[in-house]
Amino acid sequence: MSVQVIFLGTAGSIPTIARSLPAVAIRRKGELTLFDCGEGVQRQMVRAHLGFNKKMKVLVTHMHGDHVLGLPGLIQTMSLLGRTKKLEVYGPSGLKEFVDAIEQTVHFSLTFPLELVEVEDEGLVCEEKEYQIHSAWAKHSIPAFAYSFVEKPRPGRFHPQKARELGIPEGTLWGQLQRGVAVKLKDGRVVNPEEVVESPRKGRSVVYTGDSRYSNSIVKLAKYTDLLIHDCTFDDSLRERAEKDGHSTPSTAVKTALRAKAKRLVLTHISARYKEPMLLLEQAKETFPEVIVAEDFMRIDLPRVDNVIK
Amino acid sequence: MSVQVIFLGTAGSIPTIARSLPAVAIRRKGELTLFDCGEGVQRQMVRAHLGFNKKMKVLVTHMHGDHVLGLPGLIQTMSLLGRTKKLEVYGPSGLKEFVDAIEQTVHFSLTFPLELVEVEDEGLVCEEKEYQIHSAWAKHSIPAFAYSFVEKPRPGRFHPQKARELGIPEGTLWGQLQRGVAVKLKDGRVVNPEEVVESPRKGRSVVYTGDSRYSNSIVKLAKYTDLLIHDCTFDDSLRERAEKDGHSTPSTAVKTALRAKAKRLVLTHISARYKEPMLLLEQAKETFPEVIVAEDFMRIDLPRVDNVIK
Repeated sequence: MSVQVIFLGTAGSIPTIARSLPAVAIRRKGELTLFDCGEGVQRQMVRAHLGFNKKMKVLVTHMHGDHVLGLPGLIQTMSLLGRTKKLEVYGPSGLKEFVDAIEQTVHFSLTFPLELVEVEDEGLVCEEKEYQIHSAWAKHSIPAFAYSFVEKPRPGRFHPQKARELGIPEGTLWGQLQRGVAVKLKDGRVVNPEEVVESPRKGRSVVYTGDSRYSNSIVKLAKYTDLLIHDCTFDDSLRERAEKDGHSTPSTAVKTALRAKAKRLVLTHISARYKEPMLLLEQAKETFPEVIVAEDFMRIDLPRVDNVIK
Repeated sequence: MSVQVIFLGTAGSIPTIARSLPAVAIRRKGELTLFDCGEGVQRQMVRAHLGFNKKMKVLVTHMHGDHVLGLPGLIQTMSLLGRTKKLEVYGPSGLKEFVDAIEQTVHFSLTFPLELVEVEDEGLVCEEKEYQIHSAWAKHSIPAFAYSFVEKPRPGRFHPQKARELGIPEGTLWGQLQRGVAVKLKDGRVVNPEEVVESPRKGRSVVYTGDSRYSNSIVKLAKYTDLLIHDCTFDDSLRERAEKDGHSTPSTAVKTALRAKAKRLVLTHISARYKEPMLLLEQAKETFPEVIVAEDFMRIDLPRVDNVIK
């Protein structure tokens, strides 16, 4: 069961022929999590065959138009298609006022519950049975969040042979042990899960910075992440401009990746000035080889890892 | 000097892989007039190499999201690119409230004057030296306009040979006659413009219906137009559905074109259900051969006509 990351929009603030405005989807078990919602996202979703009726969350990093103006059209299209499932949208303060204003001035009627949640601080944004989403403060020209999508650990590998050797009958007791619960056998012996189950296995994680200059909070959020998707609006020769505008360059992204010990790095939010992103890649690759520059419709599969948690 | 019509978005309410949301540009003498402003229009303009710094007017037919949600992003991008020229936006009641709401909730600062004009009724919308834009009521589920772009007549052809035969010296007098003003020669004779200038020549015109079922007002607006761009959301088998939703089918568009004596007809606002628009074309072509179905990035050049006005 893979976690797939689909880059729907990889442009900076202005779209180009090749790049749509910011949006990154995570697909897991038929469910979608969308980081940012730039203009055109609904059409990018059509092109990527993602569908409009899945269980879905949208996480808006900040209220700049290029990161949120795709939301009204997405909501309208979902309604036109008769969606009935709830849509959850998270974002910084101002999100509700924005959606309210659109609803009042552009005529559409919702066919589904729209749950708007304003994220107020760093921390847990939402919790599902198998994953969590966390936020951290980014450093941009207006309040902005970075988000992480983190699978919960999976139970460790169960050893049926060991269970049989200990005389535990197959059935409900095995299930309890797999869920980490000690069991008492008919003969009075107590078997602890550790005797037949390995340590829990790490879940996968993806971190999306949105727009940000270097931020210690993001390093913390991205600790040991499998995939760090980082703002890289400018190349290193424009470091001062990036700093001033609250954006990053390859060396900022690499610094974050190294400090967070991230496994892989993807550079995105590429300014329209770079027709060919080779320059950005070269500047990053020197010190962090596991880096690529995002392209629209690029997909990255994160396979299950069997690493046990030490 | 051509008038070029560029189809930037030809979809119905939901975009498809091939069709972006409604927007049609008219390019004339380096100036742009945009009918409707569906989500994604700024990127379609990038793809069509239209630029963001031209003298420009936007005419929104009605306040449904699929016709207006491209406006905020267009304005933001123009500001990011440092536009200084005024942008004029016309649309029905509700336009100002919509743009105000966006300005207040999504952070961008304008670098240029934005002139918002709410069109209240049928008639002259705006007048330039060489053309006018008119509105007519469309018939849709909410108040909606159709618009026409109409060049003013050009002065008739001037005959220098005739002027010489009449003994009129080349120079300012020729100019006056060309502008339709009678002149008095030194010998006291008066020459009327008709003696050396043919009748004025018709300007070109384009009519865009926006979303509408059949409307007599649109027929009147489209009288003798060179190009009628008509709603054709559904095919004729879905005539009742179209009627109910305030949309048209090929036979509605043809009826309008025939009654208006339009020269050419383009069907647009094509529902996502038609992967292949052949059906729509066939239903229209039977009774109106000069018809095509719009495609994104299709361009139609309207050459100058030398027809004199009778």
